[in-house]
Amino acid sequence: MSRILIGVMGPGGGAGDEALAAARELGRLVAREGWALVTGGRAAGVMEAAGRGAREAGGLVVGILPGEDAGGASEFVDVAVATGMGQARNNVNVLSSRAVVACGMGAGTASEVALALKARKPVVLLHAGREAEAFFKYLGGDRVTVADSAQEAVEAVRKMIGD
Amino acid sequence: MSRILIGVMGPGGGAGDEALAAARELGRLVAREGWALVTGGRAAGVMEAAGRGAREAGGLVVGILPGEDAGGASEFVDVAVATGMGQARNNVNVLSSRAVVACGMGAGTASEVALALKARKPVVLLHAGREAEAFFKYLGGDRVTVADSAQEAVEAVRKMIGD
Amino acid sequence: MSRILIGVMGPGGGAGDEALAAARELGRLVAREGWALVTGGRAAGVMEAAGRGAREAGGLVVGILPGEDAGGASEFVDVAVATGMGQARNNVNVLSSRAVVACGMGAGTASEVALALKARKPVVLLHAGREAEAFFKYLGGDRVTVADSAQEAVEAVRKMIGD
Amino acid sequence: MSRILIGVMGPGGGAGDEALAAARELGRLVAREGWALVTGGRAAGVMEAAGRGAREAGGLVVGILPGEDAGGASEFVDVAVATGMGQARNNVNVLSSRAVVACGMGAGTASEVALALKARKPVVLLHAGREAEAFFKYLGGDRVTVADSAQEAVEAVRKMIGD
Repeated sequence: MSRILIGVMGPGGGAGDEALAAARELGRLVAREGWALVTGGRAAGVMEAAGRGAREAGGLVVGILPGEDAGGASEFVDVAVATGMGQARNNVNVLSSRAVVACGMGAGTASEVALALKARKPVVLLHAGREAEAFFKYLGGDRVTVADSAQEAVEAVRKMIGD
Repeated sequence: MSRILIGVMGPGGGAGDEALAAARELGRLVAREGWALVTGGRAAGVMEAAGRGAREAGGLVVGILPGEDAGGASEFVDVAVATGMGQARNNVNVLSSRAVVACGMGAGTASEVALALKARKPVVLLHAGREAEAFFKYLGGDRVTVADSAQEAVEAVRKMIGD
Repeated sequence: MSRILIGVMGPGGGAGDEALAAARELGRLVAREGWALVTGGRAAGVMEAAGRGAREAGGLVVGILPGEDAGGASEFVDVAVATGMGQARNNVNVLSSRAVVACGMGAGTASEVALALKARKPVVLLHAGREAEAFFKYLGGDRVTVADSAQEAVEAVRKMIGD
Repeated sequence: MSRILIGVMGPGGGAGDEALAAARELGRLVAREGWALVTGGRAAGVMEAAGRGAREAGGLVVGILPGEDAGGASEFVDVAVATGMGQARNNVNVLSSRAVVACGMGAGTASEVALALKARKPVVLLHAGREAEAFFKYLGGDRVTVADSAQEAVEAVRKMIGD
């Protein structure tokens, strides 16, 4: 059996301190559950922070990169998957994850949430902002949970995937 | 010089009558501008309606399909591009289009709008719904125009691409 | 019904004069059959030469590009599909084509022939070289035809697709 | 730093007993070097055999799957990356690997070797057959090594990647 992969997606640039701290805590908690962490892999923002947290907790970090090599990968990525397909790799992140936690919000993250809903995956929103919460609840209904903390997000994931 | 391609994206299922009528009109108007139409290519919903309109006005319809062959293509598609990459093809739709008009809303369409904003393309929303308008305006700022009719949408595209 | 698309694939760099002349003639003949031409779209080598030929004969040229925009597209491309997925776009070229003519040979072209065989598409080899012919005949059996001229290649395509 | 990933590619169906035994041995040896193994991930043929070997030696197996979920994944895959992009995922396998060992030969494997050469990755051929060896040596020159055993293949990889 392959490992349970949980995606933590969020902006590489422009994430606030609160989102970055939450991402690191998400990484830690995902690792402590025994899940492997999936991120967009770059050495930036939420991706990097989540990977750092998972590494601190001894977890495995899978970074699915937009570029053709592992050049821009975060140092906290254990398995660097170089897709060479730019933002189309967002669909790979999502399909590989049993559930997706979006931490912070940006255009790339929004595409990942939308693709996750298209693929009928459970989504948790954290620090996404009022407009994103309203829109994705409208779009995804029960498949979307709004969490107030990393801990609440991971509890929601645990419930949603029945692990 | 290659043709100017304009994307009309929208749900295959679940689009209301108003969105479907607008999509057909969008197809007609895009063709009359001399632009080629890009759609998701399937024989369903907004994609099919937009293609029908473009065909009626003598335009060229490029359908970028999720599947591995042209099997599910709309009869109004002239050039069927079979990507075999599922929803990751949404990024191809967007990158190939000079501007994207989203007509109606759904998870796939939302991913296309988000990917368009990530790629810094102009986006017009038509019959997207209040929550989508608020979210994508928040996300994309000036790059996003909300239109009230197909004609207004095409005028916005014309202005945005400077054609 | 969508147009019949026929792929002419070949190296962007390093193609000999003979292969380039054959590519141009292939483009002309494909257009005269009423088929649309699919190429890798770049302003280089066999892709460019085939597009030039098709344009001369009044045909439609679909260029499926590796990059994120139409920047590097050949001037003979009518419909520029920007995939942003690098060499993975070779599979899109192949899946979109009813048959593939490889003109000249290189690593990218070899991947297209192999992907075409994987997708059970008919393949014609022209100026591919002795080693390529031996290998792809071994791999693809009856699905692979070795042609001695552009005209012979197009006749083989016509027979193979039953058009 | 992320793990060194080494790809072992080969046919899912039609591989001979010799190639399957070599694949299992390759998996073991890759794991013993401390490298993570990349395969096409399916529960079939060379992919499965290589993963079995790596698992036996306590290694980490990354399976990059063509499908939209981990449904068809081999039980020996630890990290199942679901690309949903069919054979275009072959480029992801290759870009993610520091070197590629092709074990056995088929159309999909041939595309991986060609894509690896296009991406300037070192390639080792094992049980590829005379025609494949001649063609890929012609295409890739010094970048291609023909090995006679799994051990020789892994030694060639070690030398090529300078690990």
